[in-house]
Amino acid sequence: MKAAIFNGPRSIELGERPDPQIQDPTDAVVRVVLGCVCGSDLWYYRGLSPHALGPIGHEFIGVVEEVGSDVHTITKGDFVIAPFTYCDGTCANCRAGWPSNCLHGGSFGNHGIDGGQGEAVRSPFADPTLVKVPGSGYADDMLRSLLTLSDVMCTGHHAAMSAGVKQGDVVAVVGDGAVGLCAIIAAKRLGAERILALSRNPARQKLARAFGATDILSERGEEATQKILDMTNGLGVDAALECVGTGQSMATAFSIARVGSVVGAIGAPHDVVVPMDTVIFRNIGLRGGVSPVRRYIPELLDDVLAGRIHPGLVFDFTTDLSGIKEAYEAMDQRRAIKALLRIGTI
Amino acid sequence: MKAAIFNGPRSIELGERPDPQIQDPTDAVVRVVLGCVCGSDLWYYRGLSPHALGPIGHEFIGVVEEVGSDVHTITKGDFVIAPFTYCDGTCANCRAGWPSNCLHGGSFGNHGIDGGQGEAVRSPFADPTLVKVPGSGYADDMLRSLLTLSDVMCTGHHAAMSAGVKQGDVVAVVGDGAVGLCAIIAAKRLGAERILALSRNPARQKLARAFGATDILSERGEEATQKILDMTNGLGVDAALECVGTGQSMATAFSIARVGSVVGAIGAPHDVVVPMDTVIFRNIGLRGGVSPVRRYIPELLDDVLAGRIHPGLVFDFTTDLSGIKEAYEAMDQRRAIKALLRIGTI
Repeated sequence: MKAAIFNGPRSIELGERPDPQIQDPTDAVVRVVLGCVCGSDLWYYRGLSPHALGPIGHEFIGVVEEVGSDVHTITKGDFVIAPFTYCDGTCANCRAGWPSNCLHGGSFGNHGIDGGQGEAVRSPFADPTLVKVPGSGYADDMLRSLLTLSDVMCTGHHAAMSAGVKQGDVVAVVGDGAVGLCAIIAAKRLGAERILALSRNPARQKLARAFGATDILSERGEEATQKILDMTNGLGVDAALECVGTGQSMATAFSIARVGSVVGAIGAPHDVVVPMDTVIFRNIGLRGGVSPVRRYIPELLDDVLAGRIHPGLVFDFTTDLSGIKEAYEAMDQRRAIKALLRIGTI
Repeated sequence: MKAAIFNGPRSIELGERPDPQIQDPTDAVVRVVLGCVCGSDLWYYRGLSPHALGPIGHEFIGVVEEVGSDVHTITKGDFVIAPFTYCDGTCANCRAGWPSNCLHGGSFGNHGIDGGQGEAVRSPFADPTLVKVPGSGYADDMLRSLLTLSDVMCTGHHAAMSAGVKQGDVVAVVGDGAVGLCAIIAAKRLGAERILALSRNPARQKLARAFGATDILSERGEEATQKILDMTNGLGVDAALECVGTGQSMATAFSIARVGSVVGAIGAPHDVVVPMDTVIFRNIGLRGGVSPVRRYIPELLDDVLAGRIHPGLVFDFTTDLSGIKEAYEAMDQRRAIKALLRIGTI
């Protein structure tokens, strides 16, 4: 089969991989319908994070082609969403609601495990991992939104949940990538009354507004902080969502967070220093991390299927596997918010 | 009046201060009955944190001698507990439950404001700050426990609340100072089933057990981590309470915290680095800070008065104002857990 292969920083090629096979009785093989490139893929693409050479892509939706003898709730022909990590559903972490930290799990598209930037994937632990989408005949817009449940929509939701966003809150979202934009959807969905989005890119600003941002700030750093403090009587926001993972974005998030609030952070950290004096002397907490996607999919799926949220709008660049290099380049150069890969048919 | 005066690192003397007077109509003057030395006093005593020269001591209980014309719920003769910070009770932070971050508040015993290591204190905002203790004729043991509500018992409680300790939890307390010991009381009170106390001091170990610790670990650093992981099937504890404020104690707390848990931290931070990879890749949060003591006193006061908790046992050294230097020295040299100052009569 064809699949994108990571050969090292800035070297991603379309190559050949063996067709995935059932290896364990709990496996399923999924034929990928849609895949995409994640903002977090850019870290290793740019050489800033380690990543195994080989197959890549951790987000996909597809059709189940084959299941192992011990798979019972997922069957051949099911249309499924894959969370970006697989999980056994029974370990202590899974039982506690942290499937992305499954003791026997792992990530798709890393360490030799096929990923969503290829034609097919073997999913370990198919029953506890894959989520069947009910119904059939989905429009393209709906498929795009379903794909976001594989990662970015659930990750934006995790930022908001980690910060404890609640009815009536003033929320600030630091970061205008696909996850930051999805965090706006999540904050609105949880009842935020005012949502401040930090963005200086016109296309992203427009999408932020469409998703529910009430105020757009093009300032950065101390200027952004001052403006947000001015907008909140000097108090700061009820919830600051850190959706980048850099030192500056974390510093901004803490500087605008209200006393007693929690910074919700989901960015893979690069040179991030947590300002401990702010934590202790302003009682500002920090929560977040790798989203427990498998836990969040069911409730968000309901909203996607009912047309209440449209996270698929984050895809503003579409290609297929033959355009994989361009997909990475468009995101690397910030010409695209998120690149969709049309890989198969439903 | 007589009061302890901070003249610089390792230089604390008993001196004279003007008798406190009502300055604002919302003030009260409180004659101190019991004061004490706090572990956090040792930071500036040792020259490791800045502190204004002048009067010191932020913990005290006492009898109201005089009130201003706009004080209505506190009256002359009331026996009161002073939280270590005063607060107006009406600002946005107070209303949100964070009285120690009052926008118009401050700390007793700093910046020229008289403190609990002296014979009397002017309390700004007497109504929203001071808590009247009902009844009369308290035994000495009870008075000692009431004094801990001024800071350490409420601060230990804040560590446990910040970490979200709940029924059935396995909790580890890093730090065997008075606050760490009070955190054991708090964890037990919130329903923790197993409480691991890190301590290598026999007197503190004994008190930890008396307060509810089920296991005492004398190991430190990586040895402590390994032992706790071994005790918890490799998972870590449901709640790690960081009650020191050093880099090593924070590192230990994060290393033993279970996926998805929150480190509850109350130590004034000194060279603390938050391990962001652990935060993000293990979904371990960080909450805590300066305890909102005024919010916690009422519920803890009920338990103290009913004899359900006995935090006053942390005082294992007793003197009066003339022994102030010895009180600091005993704590500095870890000969004492916490030094009590008998200052007046009820």
